[in-house]
Amino acid sequence: MGIYDGARGEVAADVLEGLRRVSTATAWATLVRHGIRKPYMMGIRPLSVGEVFPMVGRARTLRYVPLREDLLPYLREAGMDNPQREAIECVAPGDVFVVDAMGSLEAGTMGDILATRIVKRGAAGIVADGCVRDSPYIKRMAIPVYTRGVHPAANTSALLPLEHNGPIQCGGVTVLPGDVLLGDEEGIVVIPPSLAPEIAAHGPGHEDLEVFLRQKIEQGHSIAEVYPPNERLRAEYEARGGGTSA
Amino acid sequence: MGIYDGARGEVAADVLEGLRRVSTATAWATLVRHGIRKPYMMGIRPLSVGEVFPMVGRARTLRYVPLREDLLPYLREAGMDNPQREAIECVAPGDVFVVDAMGSLEAGTMGDILATRIVKRGAAGIVADGCVRDSPYIKRMAIPVYTRGVHPAANTSALLPLEHNGPIQCGGVTVLPGDVLLGDEEGIVVIPPSLAPEIAAHGPGHEDLEVFLRQKIEQGHSIAEVYPPNERLRAEYEARGGGTSA
Amino acid sequence: MGIYDGARGEVAADVLEGLRRVSTATAWATLVRHGIRKPYMMGIRPLSVGEVFPMVGRARTLRYVPLREDLLPYLREAGMDNPQREAIECVAPGDVFVVDAMGSLEAGTMGDILATRIVKRGAAGIVADGCVRDSPYIKRMAIPVYTRGVHPAANTSALLPLEHNGPIQCGGVTVLPGDVLLGDEEGIVVIPPSLAPEIAAHGPGHEDLEVFLRQKIEQGHSIAEVYPPNERLRAEYEARGGGTSA
Amino acid sequence: MGIYDGARGEVAADVLEGLRRVSTATAWATLVRHGIRKPYMMGIRPLSVGEVFPMVGRARTLRYVPLREDLLPYLREAGMDNPQREAIECVAPGDVFVVDAMGSLEAGTMGDILATRIVKRGAAGIVADGCVRDSPYIKRMAIPVYTRGVHPAANTSALLPLEHNGPIQCGGVTVLPGDVLLGDEEGIVVIPPSLAPEIAAHGPGHEDLEVFLRQKIEQGHSIAEVYPPNERLRAEYEARGGGTSA
Amino acid sequence: MGIYDGARGEVAADVLEGLRRVSTATAWATLVRHGIRKPYMMGIRPLSVGEVFPMVGRARTLRYVPLREDLLPYLREAGMDNPQREAIECVAPGDVFVVDAMGSLEAGTMGDILATRIVKRGAAGIVADGCVRDSPYIKRMAIPVYTRGVHPAANTSALLPLEHNGPIQCGGVTVLPGDVLLGDEEGIVVIPPSLAPEIAAHGPGHEDLEVFLRQKIEQGHSIAEVYPPNERLRAEYEARGGGTSA
Amino acid sequence: MGIYDGARGEVAADVLEGLRRVSTATAWATLVRHGIRKPYMMGIRPLSVGEVFPMVGRARTLRYVPLREDLLPYLREAGMDNPQREAIECVAPGDVFVVDAMGSLEAGTMGDILATRIVKRGAAGIVADGCVRDSPYIKRMAIPVYTRGVHPAANTSALLPLEHNGPIQCGGVTVLPGDVLLGDEEGIVVIPPSLAPEIAAHGPGHEDLEVFLRQKIEQGHSIAEVYPPNERLRAEYEARGGGTSA
Repeated sequence: MGIYDGARGEVAADVLEGLRRVSTATAWATLVRHGIRKPYMMGIRPLSVGEVFPMVGRARTLRYVPLREDLLPYLREAGMDNPQREAIECVAPGDVFVVDAMGSLEAGTMGDILATRIVKRGAAGIVADGCVRDSPYIKRMAIPVYTRGVHPAANTSALLPLEHNGPIQCGGVTVLPGDVLLGDEEGIVVIPPSLAPEIAAHGPGHEDLEVFLRQKIEQGHSIAEVYPPNERLRAEYEARGGGTSA
Repeated sequence: MGIYDGARGEVAADVLEGLRRVSTATAWATLVRHGIRKPYMMGIRPLSVGEVFPMVGRARTLRYVPLREDLLPYLREAGMDNPQREAIECVAPGDVFVVDAMGSLEAGTMGDILATRIVKRGAAGIVADGCVRDSPYIKRMAIPVYTRGVHPAANTSALLPLEHNGPIQCGGVTVLPGDVLLGDEEGIVVIPPSLAPEIAAHGPGHEDLEVFLRQKIEQGHSIAEVYPPNERLRAEYEARGGGTSA
Repeated sequence: MGIYDGARGEVAADVLEGLRRVSTATAWATLVRHGIRKPYMMGIRPLSVGEVFPMVGRARTLRYVPLREDLLPYLREAGMDNPQREAIECVAPGDVFVVDAMGSLEAGTMGDILATRIVKRGAAGIVADGCVRDSPYIKRMAIPVYTRGVHPAANTSALLPLEHNGPIQCGGVTVLPGDVLLGDEEGIVVIPPSLAPEIAAHGPGHEDLEVFLRQKIEQGHSIAEVYPPNERLRAEYEARGGGTSA
Repeated sequence: MGIYDGARGEVAADVLEGLRRVSTATAWATLVRHGIRKPYMMGIRPLSVGEVFPMVGRARTLRYVPLREDLLPYLREAGMDNPQREAIECVAPGDVFVVDAMGSLEAGTMGDILATRIVKRGAAGIVADGCVRDSPYIKRMAIPVYTRGVHPAANTSALLPLEHNGPIQCGGVTVLPGDVLLGDEEGIVVIPPSLAPEIAAHGPGHEDLEVFLRQKIEQGHSIAEVYPPNERLRAEYEARGGGTSA
Repeated sequence: MGIYDGARGEVAADVLEGLRRVSTATAWATLVRHGIRKPYMMGIRPLSVGEVFPMVGRARTLRYVPLREDLLPYLREAGMDNPQREAIECVAPGDVFVVDAMGSLEAGTMGDILATRIVKRGAAGIVADGCVRDSPYIKRMAIPVYTRGVHPAANTSALLPLEHNGPIQCGGVTVLPGDVLLGDEEGIVVIPPSLAPEIAAHGPGHEDLEVFLRQKIEQGHSIAEVYPPNERLRAEYEARGGGTSA
Repeated sequence: MGIYDGARGEVAADVLEGLRRVSTATAWATLVRHGIRKPYMMGIRPLSVGEVFPMVGRARTLRYVPLREDLLPYLREAGMDNPQREAIECVAPGDVFVVDAMGSLEAGTMGDILATRIVKRGAAGIVADGCVRDSPYIKRMAIPVYTRGVHPAANTSALLPLEHNGPIQCGGVTVLPGDVLLGDEEGIVVIPPSLAPEIAAHGPGHEDLEVFLRQKIEQGHSIAEVYPPNERLRAEYEARGGGTSA
């Protein structure tokens, strides 16, 4: 794995804070402009029912592989070195706990007790390319949770925890520890640490501009008059104080 | 395309109004009786969260094909002749904007600004065999929106607009411009203009009858006594003033 | 079918009552401990929008096969011996009406009138490996309903009712008449009658213990301290009166 | 099941013989003309590698449901009353052994020994909506075999035999015992016994005509001149002795 | 459709000839270097069993939409203006007949007679994003045929021909009339006319080089020594007369 | 990954040799008897067309994750430390090269040159949960190759090599370096090193017995008489010299 270690990053708290005012659609646009064509997790949907969005945080990863019963004794022997337990007890405030269960719909990757521990440790969200169990409880927790589905089975009935904080895939996107995950009701985009500051700096202004343009449309202007905005419209927007953060 | 042009129709406003009291299940039954076996769009689900149903309107169509990067210069050159822009600026009050993106889950077919323009022009609904972006905004708009999914990517990252107001497929159903689309929480059926008057005339009465029969069931009658209704039950229903519109 | 008839069972009302305090996750754990590895229906999701969960009841089954038009005359001739009608009029209070439509997404298996009759007869729930029509009404009924999807088409446009109260599959799980179905927002597990008493007896205590452990986590204890619970924690739990039913 | 029992039929040997000269495409056309719209098994492909086609025979059915481990003791107790064993030992010359395993890709429905027994008893073919094991042997047997896939697992690792010679679905088509199955390299169509004589009588002639028309095309005639054939062409065909069996 | 008309092209016969010595893998590499990222048709597999590859030709297109029974009278009325018939009678030598049936697996898009006519008119191949019927015959024809599947049903049982020689999608790739299709056993890539000369000029040389490098590997050299080839190796290759066409 | 390192094993050459006479169906039976329920790779099919089966060898693994363009510079910098190159140059005689590309159908994981190098280094086979490019060449190589599909794209158009010889999943089965892979025309089973000797010792005898039983069936005995074999039959088998290796 070592060859990509240089891309693991540490993103400042104020950058994370700035990203909270950016939509996944806006972040996507910046990422694709930087040549990253598929930053959006496919098939990973919000499970949470409350007003818990957006989700912004640093990725802490856990990887599962399919169960092989001959390996279970090694897992038991590992005790708290079990990569799942280890991963959970390493969660730091602002982390998003990201699980690669290869899209498995055959078992949960965690239940209410582990999820509660993740919340307690200050996580900013939970994301699973797979399922959770005890979902009636988990969907009502105070942090955003995204999954591919739900299943009442315990993880080791179909999965084996393999590694904590290595590179994984989730929803078809590679996630390195330290990557920034930005989630809203539309889903999740993965932001490399090196690009997070730019998105945090310019994204909120772009959102403001978009609201301004939407208002123009609501006032009756046509697409041709509004989008993309011409010089005059941009001037009007800036005169109104828009774009100061952009 | 020309050979089916004779089937393109213009449906009167009062017919559309009458259809607002008809469920997709009832409309389906009339359509199948006329030999149209698959009028229901498969996999196209309501995105809207508010009380915006039913959706009734005339189809205005837009067709996408998969992106081919060598064709992008032609699209740029087209400017406002871009079929997508053209389609939106042609929306008339009572139109349903129907997009064939071949079921693509790889990009949105429109975002909040274009969708707002469609609303502003008086559209009765938006339907996409594909995705929208800015879905957290779009799902809360004042008109019904149905899609196959959501994706934050702009359309030209995966799609090319090809044609405005030609025949398309959507959810596995052929849609000609001018066809009537009827949508409720169950989904959408496509109604040929020639059959819309009959459904508008008899559908509401059928809904009333169904409520009447359901009440009979709630009063404790068995299926055999109630469904299909016998002469006596029909007489009782009509005596109560039911079926006047049927 | 005869060879499995000995497994058809009759579960006492107080057992059903006890199961109402058990989650599917907890029931799954007991079932798998007894060697039943796949008791959870895959892809069968709650349709109901209200506060109607949990669902507990005895399975009454109906089996469909794909439509073959040459067989329709036999169905018409059968009249109320139509297995669908027969099944509905046999529903007893506390039954869950379980339909095997082989996962078909091409037609509903019932509409509002039949569903209302099922409710009226005292059913504890409706489960379909297939669709229902009139879903805007059915999803608001007073009993839990689970389906694979919705479709406005009447059942005989794609399906033929074949048999009432025989063994079926539903969501990939075999269901015998008399099996207990337990459903919550996570989905449904099938419980053989012989195992229902144990789950009803010990499940609620397990749920209490789980709440107790979750509270410990919320108080700041680590996974290692809490799960699985050690002797001291179990003692504390029991001293608080927990586990009396376990 | 009883209501469709009248549709179970017995097809004469010479009818079966006639069908050997009919393609599935031709048989499909007659069936659809009689209102049977979906007689073709979807997803059931030839496994056989040799020159063993066509396959014509009467359906003898076997139905599986998903494994439930608590039911295994009943299966063991059944001994040779096991519906799978029973079904195999009832195969008569000219039967096609048709297995409904609900499309399962998780286990074989039979292996080389049982398949060999089916051949030995004179079966005309084997069809499984599921898998077989020992497929390297089975694909080289002297009779046509069609499956959805292959899997080395024994059936009871994922499936339970439920019933012998009841109605089943296979590839999305309902099969009653006694139905005629006609298979070629294109796949399989199910022919109700009542329609088999017509197809056997007219199908071979239709194949001859098609060859004649194809030759016309090969000689350089256009579609308009050849298809559908006009009076003159039909006369020429008949003058050549064509269509005597049609 | 008009906006992309400038991209429709006419490719010279010697360019087509040159492409016969190029693999899809090599063509893909040139296309992606020119920014065309998805030129390969997904899911469209060779049906042909003989030694008929490669396939090189200019696209002639036919587009289907889903059947709607109310439109069938218009189709009948069209007679030989039926877009399917029209398309076939317009095939010119060197054309590849490309059919967009939206991936439908529910009916054939043509049978043996139409396919024979396409061969007779000199087509270089047939490609269908859908099925063909009479596949036992078609797979043995003298030209390459690629499909998504086979089905014995006639096209109008599930599909309606809509348009001849307009832009279509096939296997997820946009195809304009006049595009070059290059197919081998690996599948098909779509080559815009403007890029065909470059691929025809340099592709065969690249294939020669690849054979040379493979021989080096077979002689025991490591990947590092051979790929990508260094200056010395290129010199050796050129000294042997390789690359003259590259 | 460390916790399962104890399960990585070294299997003796004579064990591998013995396994060459064992089918995947027989190996599956022993594995499941030892509690390993899913040793068979789902969806990984033989690509090879020649008489190259069986495949027996020790797993050497390579893991891909989805492409992220910002990570490409790290890959380039790695040079021959690129995990893909590294993995290939470490192949030892008797290794099976197993690639986890997460089932991707969007790019090849290797082409003819790398595949040729793997053959040259003495590999016993190539397995990819993904695609290969240059498949017309690769399918005719002298060793067995299994894939999920084919695609002409180079790996880095959609994938990034991540790690050499770590644990992976392939076809839904966990593969540790050193595991034994056994493949025939039916597919591949993964055998933990600790169980390989038993299968190598008893499997060939089981195959002999199966042939013996099949012959009994061919002689006209019923299933009840032959399977499972009774004492007398086993005695007859042993008297013929069968089972010496069992």
